[in-house]
Amino acid sequence: MSTTPHPFDKALALHHSDIRVGHFTGTTSPDYWNMVGPFGGTTAALALQSVLQHPDLLGTPIALTVNYAAALGEGAFDIQATAVRTNRSTQHWTVTITQPGADGTTNMTTTATVVTAARRDTWSQADLTMPEAPKPEAVDRISIGPSGVAWLDQYEMRPFSGGIPSKWDGSLQHSETRIWVRDAQARPLDFASLAALSDVFYPRVWLRRAKHVPAGTVSITTYFHVGAAELAEVGTGYLLGCAAGQQFFNGFFDQKAQLWSEKGALLATSNQIVYYKE
Amino acid sequence: MSTTPHPFDKALALHHSDIRVGHFTGTTSPDYWNMVGPFGGTTAALALQSVLQHPDLLGTPIALTVNYAAALGEGAFDIQATAVRTNRSTQHWTVTITQPGADGTTNMTTTATVVTAARRDTWSQADLTMPEAPKPEAVDRISIGPSGVAWLDQYEMRPFSGGIPSKWDGSLQHSETRIWVRDAQARPLDFASLAALSDVFYPRVWLRRAKHVPAGTVSITTYFHVGAAELAEVGTGYLLGCAAGQQFFNGFFDQKAQLWSEKGALLATSNQIVYYKE
Repeated sequence: MSTTPHPFDKALALHHSDIRVGHFTGTTSPDYWNMVGPFGGTTAALALQSVLQHPDLLGTPIALTVNYAAALGEGAFDIQATAVRTNRSTQHWTVTITQPGADGTTNMTTTATVVTAARRDTWSQADLTMPEAPKPEAVDRISIGPSGVAWLDQYEMRPFSGGIPSKWDGSLQHSETRIWVRDAQARPLDFASLAALSDVFYPRVWLRRAKHVPAGTVSITTYFHVGAAELAEVGTGYLLGCAAGQQFFNGFFDQKAQLWSEKGALLATSNQIVYYKE
Repeated sequence: MSTTPHPFDKALALHHSDIRVGHFTGTTSPDYWNMVGPFGGTTAALALQSVLQHPDLLGTPIALTVNYAAALGEGAFDIQATAVRTNRSTQHWTVTITQPGADGTTNMTTTATVVTAARRDTWSQADLTMPEAPKPEAVDRISIGPSGVAWLDQYEMRPFSGGIPSKWDGSLQHSETRIWVRDAQARPLDFASLAALSDVFYPRVWLRRAKHVPAGTVSITTYFHVGAAELAEVGTGYLLGCAAGQQFFNGFFDQKAQLWSEKGALLATSNQIVYYKE
């Protein structure tokens, strides 16, 4: 039995400081490093995690918006989670992630808002059905190799449609990816990892154009459609993820995504707006 | 020639105070009153407007997230717009709307984040095509009548699919509305009115169930897919709006929406998460 913490738990380790309630400190994770900063999914998960670890938390996550103002630098960061409004069954949060800047200034890298709520049993209905898919085991896993992009190694990705273009030949095509995905090292799904998985899709403009232009998420919003019990049912199973771009205009495009459990339960819907250079 | 301001301009009138940069005061508008507070679209537009009137503004809106923490009460409110990060071509904002509470406290009613950017000409592509539709003039305008819901009178709404159910008989159906819509009193489209129009769709759960259950938007995110020139082209023309629910689960559902110009240009995509009671 291993006692080594999971890389995601290490990346999400936060220390609740004594400075004020909701103030946490943490350190960026080399395991989830992207090209010029942490994988954005980890940053989103950290913002959510600060709320989930806040002593005043009410309920479970409903909505999470994360704005990537600047890439985090390697090293220590501060997170402040503040419950700005607590109603009878819903709670509204603001979150900031900062790092020390030059000359004693504070570097604002990330802002976020979170809504949590105590859910109640109501009439429920799933109108977004999971697309047909081959069994996960029947789909090849992406072999990352020495790409230098660490976070890709943390996920087991099995795209069965819209994988990374094999030729960057500028041919125009659709922008939809369908993929089986889960943590590479088994870890039961929770809200933080679901938040991270919502950002696992590479920029749609690369697929749409078969062209590798500079691109980066500016803002992501994820809605959670399950409670803790439904997440527990997923456990360490695969998720089916779909992502597609909708409109590409003068430097920004939007990208919608859905994540289902292998049994076909819609766990999260997510949208992001992404900068692209040319 | 009339010199009376448009109701929307009256609702959005903000006074930049001397207290600090980005601090504005305003007053709720009876013209856009909903059942227990202002129409959420107006509140979203106000949050955006505070950024657009900020002296440090860079560029035009890309993304807007508004969290409805509590209904605004009738009367005066304060808005604080803060540029938390200004990069070379993008700018990140936080916005709060507050009202005086009891005993000298401050009542946080709304939080928002906004991303603005200086757009540049790039490769562009519209992948979300406008659905086929009859001409606006061929569709009956909704007659509001003495509903007591003031804001509905401010919009000319011509739904050609998924209008308000004629019978609240609990019959299950789809949740998609398609509508031609614009300001009832002609007003050239701008980013603030586009933000408001993104919230013009009634709760999808009413349509899905043909049942009038208590429901209210908790958080809305709108992405803007045009610059000022493209908005100016729309002028006072109709927009084609589509909205549909996706997942209804234990008290919350999500609702996606798109707004096209009459010529078929996608102006905005929007998503919201909505509370429903039963």
